[in-house]
Parts: sequence; C-alpha cells; structure tokens
Amino acid sequence: MKKSLGAKTLVYPCPDWIVGTYDENGKPNVMAAAWAGVCCSKPPCITVSLRKATYSYGCLMHSKAYTINILSEDQLVEADYFGIASGRDEDKFAKSGFTPVKSELVNAPYIKEAPLILECKIIHTYEIGLHTQFIGEIMDVKAEENVLDSEGNPSIEKVRPIIYATGDREYFSIGKKLERAYKVGMPMAKKKE
Amino acid sequence: MKKSLGAKTLVYPCPDWIVGTYDENGKPNVMAAAWAGVCCSKPPCITVSLRKATYSYGCLMHSKAYTINILSEDQLVEADYFGIASGRDEDKFAKSGFTPVKSELVNAPYIKEAPLILECKIIHTYEIGLHTQFIGEIMDVKAEENVLDSEGNPSIEKVRPIIYATGDREYFSIGKKLERAYKVGMPMAKKKE
Repeated sequence: MKKSLGAKTLVYPCPDWIVGTYDENGKPNVMAAAWAGVCCSKPPCITVSLRKATYSYGCLMHSKAYTINILSEDQLVEADYFGIASGRDEDKFAKSGFTPVKSELVNAPYIKEAPLILECKIIHTYEIGLHTQFIGEIMDVKAEENVLDSEGNPSIEKVRPIIYATGDREYFSIGKKLERAYKVGMPMAKKKE
Repeated sequence: MKKSLGAKTLVYPCPDWIVGTYDENGKPNVMAAAWAGVCCSKPPCITVSLRKATYSYGCLMHSKAYTINILSEDQLVEADYFGIASGRDEDKFAKSGFTPVKSELVNAPYIKEAPLILECKIIHTYEIGLHTQFIGEIMDVKAEENVLDSEGNPSIEKVRPIIYATGDREYFSIGKKLERAYKVGMPMAKKKE
C-alpha cells in the first residue's frame, strides 16, 4: 500500500550540473541546477530550468547559450557554493578559484577544472511557472583525457558526477556498476508470453 | 587540455525511469526513459522525451497523462526489459509479472511493485527532433512506507534508484552519502573575496 506524499518534486536521481553563462558585460558566471536532463538525441539536446529571480536567468536570455559543467565529487564544495551564492553579488569564478574558458562554439564560458563539459546553444525557451525551461542544442562535448575509457567515452566511474537527492537535500556519489543496458533484460524479452 | 568528443548526449547522471500509460484500448503499458528530469518546482513538473516510433508515444498523445515509476536496483531486469520490448508486440505488465494500478488522479497506470511513483498530467508537448518532450504536472507522489525516512520523505538510500550511464550504456547504483546541500559550500560563500 502506497502512501500519498502530495504534489512535490520527489524523484530520484537528479543531477547537480553547473550552468555557465556570460552576463551582459561579459562577466562569466556559474550556477548549480538540478532541474535538468537530456531531452533529445537528434539534435542532441539538454534541458535546464531556472527561476527568473536568478542572475543566470538574465544571462541565458541575453547570451542565448550556456555550458553544462559536470563536476566530480571531489569538487563538491565548489558545486554547492555555486548553488548558494549569486553572480549578482560576487564573482563566483574568482572566489572558487576555478578558471573560465571562453567557448569557441557558443557565447558562454566553461570551467577549465570540470572533467566533462557540454557547450549548448539555446533553441527553445518555455515559461512553465516558477521555472523557465531552456532547451539547448549540444554543439560539442569536451572531456579531460584522464576520464576517458578505452572506447573514448567519458567513464562515469572516472568523472564521478554528483547526484542530488531532492527529498533530504543531500548529495550522493555514483555507486557500483550493475549491468549492461539492453542486455540484462534480454532473457525476459525473449521469453514466450 | 580537454578533448572534443563531438555533439553527443554524453552527460552524467541520467535516470532510468519507467513511464506508465494506457493505450487507446485501455491496455496498460510501460517503457524505460532516460531522457527525463524535473523541470519546475511550482507547479511541480517533470519532463520526459520519447521517440515518435515508440508505442508509448501514441499512448501519451491519446491519454494526456503518464506516471513515472522509479524502480529499485533489485528490479533492474524488469527495468531493462521495459526498454527493450514494445507494448505494440506484447503485454509488458503480464510478462514482467508487475501489477498495473489505475491512478485515481490521472489517466495512467502505475506499477504496484515500484517503491516510488509520480502521477502526471501532460501540460505541454514540444517536438524537438527525433524526440518529443512531454511536460507533466506532478499531481501526486506515492511511495511505499518502507522507503520513507524519519521525516516522511522517500529516502534515496532505501529506494535505490537505477542510474543510467549513456556513454557505455551501463546501469549503476546509487553510492555513498557525501554532504548536505546548501551547507558544504557555505564556508566558501561566507569567505570575503
């Protein structure tokens, strides 16, 4: 018997991605966003939702671009700080010690120290309510060589992305490898009904 | 120095959520979706993207509603099977042994055996490209009592949701608790520039 918990955003897992933008004066800014995910394979697209009150909201509306920076769990202090402070009040790059790198593909900076980053051009904006959704086409993915696996893909076990648990507002690390997708369920798929 | 990997959906973590729908004849169906995330706090909303070719796509267009079912890593075989087979060819509930429960709030079934489920009413549809995005307003969240923590929230450590790694198409479990959000970065936020 399930217990009703009400109309809330209680769902797992959520990411903890860092959105990189330039403001009107070209100052690089970053903020943490958990309301985000992939939303299309072709063109490859990401969706991220921000509140209008955030400084980044104005930056995205102005620059029509953003980066998604995936930090490692070793960079949790910086990731959390990016979700606490506002670029309206301070230079978050300066205070964190991270280095902004100007993307050559979109009008947004990425974090040099991030193991994995995506450069995105905004192709659609939708006002939902408290949050506005920004769909960005992924123009390129860049990764540090030391997080690539033997097939040249970024390894989730080497990136060690931060996972956000909305209910208790806690961060978690990635756990153990379970099984290969489109394989472990194959015997059930082949079973006669 | 970062290596360019091209315009791909290489980003971590992604969820492995099971989307529940009814088809035109009222047959309950489920499919796995990794292109998904939260997209608004007020109203609380989820976004999930499906390819037009899927059987569920027609179900969502018809029923204007869906459930998001978060399975535990113990239910990985069923979760993977739901991403392999099509409801066009078979009854995935029957074959998996899972039980459909008719939602009293939206026109969609949820999985009785899932530890955590969300009942969603579609409020917006957007054709991106290969995928179509369905924004669903969360009408209620329901959880098994045994996954609730002392504060009444679903505990991610008890739910043990499946995490999907897109690059290598592998499933991962949730790892260890790191730190509390909006707390671990506070000393950096309070530091003078």
